[in-house]
Amino acid sequence: MVTQSVTGQRPRARDLGIPFAGTPGPINAITDVKGLEVGYTTLISGDGEKAVRTGVTAILPQGKDFRGRLFAAWHTLNGNGEMTGTTWIDESGGLGSPVMITNTHSVGIVRDAVIEWGNKKFKGEGYSGDFSLPVVAETWDGFLNDINGFHVRKEHVFQALDSAKTGAIAEGNVGGGTGMISHGFKAGTGTASRVIANAGYTVGVLVQANYGSRQLFSVAGVPVGQEITDLVPEPGKRTAAVSPLWKPLDEGAGSIIVVVATDAPLLPHQLDRLVKRVSLGVGVVGGRGENSSGDIFIAFSTANATEFSKASGVANIQMLPNERINPLFWAVAQATEEAIMNALVAAETMTGHNGNKVHALPHDRLKAVMKKYNRLSESQK
Amino acid sequence: MVTQSVTGQRPRARDLGIPFAGTPGPINAITDVKGLEVGYTTLISGDGEKAVRTGVTAILPQGKDFRGRLFAAWHTLNGNGEMTGTTWIDESGGLGSPVMITNTHSVGIVRDAVIEWGNKKFKGEGYSGDFSLPVVAETWDGFLNDINGFHVRKEHVFQALDSAKTGAIAEGNVGGGTGMISHGFKAGTGTASRVIANAGYTVGVLVQANYGSRQLFSVAGVPVGQEITDLVPEPGKRTAAVSPLWKPLDEGAGSIIVVVATDAPLLPHQLDRLVKRVSLGVGVVGGRGENSSGDIFIAFSTANATEFSKASGVANIQMLPNERINPLFWAVAQATEEAIMNALVAAETMTGHNGNKVHALPHDRLKAVMKKYNRLSESQK
Amino acid sequence: MVTQSVTGQRPRARDLGIPFAGTPGPINAITDVKGLEVGYTTLISGDGEKAVRTGVTAILPQGKDFRGRLFAAWHTLNGNGEMTGTTWIDESGGLGSPVMITNTHSVGIVRDAVIEWGNKKFKGEGYSGDFSLPVVAETWDGFLNDINGFHVRKEHVFQALDSAKTGAIAEGNVGGGTGMISHGFKAGTGTASRVIANAGYTVGVLVQANYGSRQLFSVAGVPVGQEITDLVPEPGKRTAAVSPLWKPLDEGAGSIIVVVATDAPLLPHQLDRLVKRVSLGVGVVGGRGENSSGDIFIAFSTANATEFSKASGVANIQMLPNERINPLFWAVAQATEEAIMNALVAAETMTGHNGNKVHALPHDRLKAVMKKYNRLSESQK
Amino acid sequence: MVTQSVTGQRPRARDLGIPFAGTPGPINAITDVKGLEVGYTTLISGDGEKAVRTGVTAILPQGKDFRGRLFAAWHTLNGNGEMTGTTWIDESGGLGSPVMITNTHSVGIVRDAVIEWGNKKFKGEGYSGDFSLPVVAETWDGFLNDINGFHVRKEHVFQALDSAKTGAIAEGNVGGGTGMISHGFKAGTGTASRVIANAGYTVGVLVQANYGSRQLFSVAGVPVGQEITDLVPEPGKRTAAVSPLWKPLDEGAGSIIVVVATDAPLLPHQLDRLVKRVSLGVGVVGGRGENSSGDIFIAFSTANATEFSKASGVANIQMLPNERINPLFWAVAQATEEAIMNALVAAETMTGHNGNKVHALPHDRLKAVMKKYNRLSESQK
Repeated sequence: MVTQSVTGQRPRARDLGIPFAGTPGPINAITDVKGLEVGYTTLISGDGEKAVRTGVTAILPQGKDFRGRLFAAWHTLNGNGEMTGTTWIDESGGLGSPVMITNTHSVGIVRDAVIEWGNKKFKGEGYSGDFSLPVVAETWDGFLNDINGFHVRKEHVFQALDSAKTGAIAEGNVGGGTGMISHGFKAGTGTASRVIANAGYTVGVLVQANYGSRQLFSVAGVPVGQEITDLVPEPGKRTAAVSPLWKPLDEGAGSIIVVVATDAPLLPHQLDRLVKRVSLGVGVVGGRGENSSGDIFIAFSTANATEFSKASGVANIQMLPNERINPLFWAVAQATEEAIMNALVAAETMTGHNGNKVHALPHDRLKAVMKKYNRLSESQK
Repeated sequence: MVTQSVTGQRPRARDLGIPFAGTPGPINAITDVKGLEVGYTTLISGDGEKAVRTGVTAILPQGKDFRGRLFAAWHTLNGNGEMTGTTWIDESGGLGSPVMITNTHSVGIVRDAVIEWGNKKFKGEGYSGDFSLPVVAETWDGFLNDINGFHVRKEHVFQALDSAKTGAIAEGNVGGGTGMISHGFKAGTGTASRVIANAGYTVGVLVQANYGSRQLFSVAGVPVGQEITDLVPEPGKRTAAVSPLWKPLDEGAGSIIVVVATDAPLLPHQLDRLVKRVSLGVGVVGGRGENSSGDIFIAFSTANATEFSKASGVANIQMLPNERINPLFWAVAQATEEAIMNALVAAETMTGHNGNKVHALPHDRLKAVMKKYNRLSESQK
Repeated sequence: MVTQSVTGQRPRARDLGIPFAGTPGPINAITDVKGLEVGYTTLISGDGEKAVRTGVTAILPQGKDFRGRLFAAWHTLNGNGEMTGTTWIDESGGLGSPVMITNTHSVGIVRDAVIEWGNKKFKGEGYSGDFSLPVVAETWDGFLNDINGFHVRKEHVFQALDSAKTGAIAEGNVGGGTGMISHGFKAGTGTASRVIANAGYTVGVLVQANYGSRQLFSVAGVPVGQEITDLVPEPGKRTAAVSPLWKPLDEGAGSIIVVVATDAPLLPHQLDRLVKRVSLGVGVVGGRGENSSGDIFIAFSTANATEFSKASGVANIQMLPNERINPLFWAVAQATEEAIMNALVAAETMTGHNGNKVHALPHDRLKAVMKKYNRLSESQK
Repeated sequence: MVTQSVTGQRPRARDLGIPFAGTPGPINAITDVKGLEVGYTTLISGDGEKAVRTGVTAILPQGKDFRGRLFAAWHTLNGNGEMTGTTWIDESGGLGSPVMITNTHSVGIVRDAVIEWGNKKFKGEGYSGDFSLPVVAETWDGFLNDINGFHVRKEHVFQALDSAKTGAIAEGNVGGGTGMISHGFKAGTGTASRVIANAGYTVGVLVQANYGSRQLFSVAGVPVGQEITDLVPEPGKRTAAVSPLWKPLDEGAGSIIVVVATDAPLLPHQLDRLVKRVSLGVGVVGGRGENSSGDIFIAFSTANATEFSKASGVANIQMLPNERINPLFWAVAQATEEAIMNALVAAETMTGHNGNKVHALPHDRLKAVMKKYNRLSESQK
């Protein structure tokens, strides 16, 4: 199997003139949150029945050497999906492992491999604490990927973790997002960030976007999905034969995983509030949490890690007052919206499993529609 | 105290050319759900410090004679508010009382009065079952209403219940919605409905809208709040003096109560899914569940009432398969969006407590903005 | 109406030789938590149809002058009951009002009266913050009390609040617990506390006990309910006529409200863990959260109040590590168990509404049963 | 590696004279629920550092050919553990896969292997529905098992599934329960059932018990843990060296997974109520949901499977009225208590990883303590 690297050199959504509210960080990525690293393993090989179009995404909130806990919370808009480790997050208020994303049928191998990686890294004897309950999420890539071939192996997991880095990261057909589809267009991994004026806090978002119907697809309020009704996914002969009722265009299908990172000092119940607002960002682009969708979101704060990891004495924790939380709510919705659009703008047309084909969102036509509704940013008119 | 009746003869949002998705029912109101009755007591009297601008809204899911239970569920986008009776809804899966809405400081008197009304109506001896745990929600109207005067009395509650009726209902400055403000404009009570194609089910929504910032106010995707930045609420001298930091325009304030009724046969866990999608409708208009907002929603199904009320044997329940639920999700978001707009379009400029004044959303300017963004319906261009 | 004062001079459960685990505080009451005050209004008057046997209990976590917020959480074992204010607790993580307990049909008047009391006390103009969403819980006392007479008035609420005090408090037929029944015996208000060895933290519990079947009644593991099967509640003629199927002895009926106070510095998600363990204490005495029971519990921490009330800057919060929380879990279960037993041991036989009669748990027979099973404390043998 | 079969021929708890309330089914096992099958793979091999003492337990609610969905719900007393698939249970109300239990570090391989097994069995093409989100739970067996050796392989999972059967099943050191410890004694897998008088419904429970402190260990109300204070787990040299602070005896450690099956026609919100009562059963034996414990429970109903699996039309569902649910609540607590005791009574002394040793609960001493407190059943005195 050949493991390809994808660079994602296409323009980003705001480069096309899509208007977004709020102020992005320097990279406009989840890696604007200091210390956070992202790594991908992208698996693209073969064709036809055995076509591999999948991968693994690793988000290390504090980089590869972190072992402390972060306050965290999670939320689901529609729960037709999996995110392991959430029961311990609810109970403890914390996250003590990386956050991994892969395809639906590889969650297990990724989960156990994270534990193995942690054991080796931290030379743990016996119970390795939070690393034994890692967070692994998934979206289904079986239209483009031979998902029942179980092509993700533990080495791919180690690679994603070991290659994680700070700075600019690839978008589109990369990592766990390799085989994704959103609103009937090729999608995948996307990211964005917001800086909170005055307070100086950063909110970073990374999505693995694989959800949504074409007709509800809305860009900055413009009904793009009703203007571009062609370029729909094309089932190869074999898939068309077994799935005559395939209707993601009509009703939305798939899932979206959203990871929210912030350096604002939020407690678990406040992160619970924050992560709930991801739904609003998904909603403005056109997601409705459809029945077959696993829309699962996680948020964590990199503040307080050292104190939260104390096992004795009393920890000294910093907390942003609830009265100051509104700008963070807005930032989460804004960055989620832009990260989804970045995934759609970066992803390239792909043919995969059984010859199934998914088209990229055409940049020129997108701009034309935005212009029709007087919503193209000035610089692009 | 004089109790005024308000007829609400202004045009509705779609009459102005605002485009909405989906197919409304005959009345485009929550009363499109068969048997459901709505009653209002609207209290408008006095001026200055003692100005009364408040009321009570009663929604009787099965009309005044119902005593059976309906499957129900509730959800909160932001919980800075009150809805009584929800713990028993969670536990039992059902709703056995009317749903009432009033101002924040009158929830108690409305609650006890519903029990008293039920006791009289049903000649109950001792424990009157679900009627002893009634559902009463609230939003805060203290900018226009002398909320600390506790002007709602139990007779007003009885009146709202006794006057409930099917058919067309008033919108805007009526019932519990009398003193409401949304996105910096006068708002209040609004309603809308959707019919599910083929299935024949109806989804009806009623909102008491009192939430939202001006800058995020979005109408069918058009940034109206950024185009109309004047006509903001005007604090009278007294209020301006005590609340120099009053900033609902910047960040959003207040709350929104949303009641979703359907005749589709949904179980409690499915209504839980349905009511969660209310957030998406609030979100597309510009709500972000801000910190001071009590965004609390309830949904119930009028199907299965007789069987659900059985206390012995085994009940025969009808259930819509999850696979058929997507159109209902979409309908909830659509009807919520339109009900909010109907509240804003129907509400008229009001001056109240301490001379505080809130402006109506100007219909002509709204249409002009919609036209600028090429989003005015054909018939209105 | 005559308002009686009840002194509660009977022995407490451990005075009878019931063995309890853990170390109680000096008073063995919720008031062992420093600064916490409890006030009662006990209403006992009349006989027959109009017999009044009810009241109001006020718990002021920081005494009468507090206006700050405390971290808090709540839980329900079975939700056939009401506790207002919980939605805002979930959202904000905090409690900003007293905790009140009364009968089921008086929750509303108590709620609005708390707001009025707060308005007067704090001279608030307009929105009075957390005081506008007060916490009021209930249990049903309609077997002994004319509950549909709505005998609690706002003056009774003010009295309970104004008379609240630190130090030893009455148990049994007092406050909201006046007309309560548990395991078929007269019950009511009870309290207990535990001190955490070394750490020095205190956990205090107050219960309003009105739940449970006779046959499951268990005292320190001894099946007392199977040994004492007589002395069951006696319906008067009128009640017996209308409720031929009255069967609380068989299946358990009623409810239990439990208030847990601690000075340990716990965050909301940790208090959520703590309050969940109340169920275990109720369970060992024989509660199973039966269908008609409203078993609703609240916990709060008096630590961090000043910082949590900050509305600007960043709050400095102290947090007990999760690794140190187990002794608090144990203490909650222990103190709940003892508080229930204290309510049962303190309550005296009462005749009320319609001549209905409920017997006190006979102390001598209780001791005899404990001795039979070799579970009477040494000093009492 | 040698896979051993364990027969579990020791007496069961009630054979020793432990009194339990309620009426068990014919087998007094979860397999009293018609059609339900249980399969084990028990892995016992080697010694010292590489000692394998682990396994896999498979519960197939409708046997090996089921592919329909069952109404289901889950609950956690303390969430320091993993149960995959729960997010989809919450959303859909249903369970569409087997329920698997293994050790903490093998959840992933078991999860993916279930999908693979389902794919082969059902010849699914592409998305295999609920089987893609299987339920796999765990408890930690690292004191006796080389957990970081990852000894569970997918063949072991297939074997547990393929060997599942109805009828009597083994208890103690079998399946996922092979290396378990409870209250400081050797524990493991246990099961029990209850039949609801008149209604004819069955409640079956299976536990993987690995939780609890010695001092709180209580048997039918008798403080056995305070009477038998020796026979504590013995760390081998290596473990003693690296874990000087090992203190499960003082505070409780480990976890308990509880699976509740019933043929009573309960909806998801009713199963949610049912599964919550598992905590009460764990509580009476002495569990307090300690911080390091993953106490996660799942309940499902085998009624309504065919109708719940309909994807079109309207399903006809049977529902037990809430008013009839109390006997099921009691049965859940009773069967949980007895299943735990059965695990403890069946388990035999085991030496494993690093020479660590855990003693069985001595039957004769247990009986002696029960007799001291006058709680031994008549036939055993």
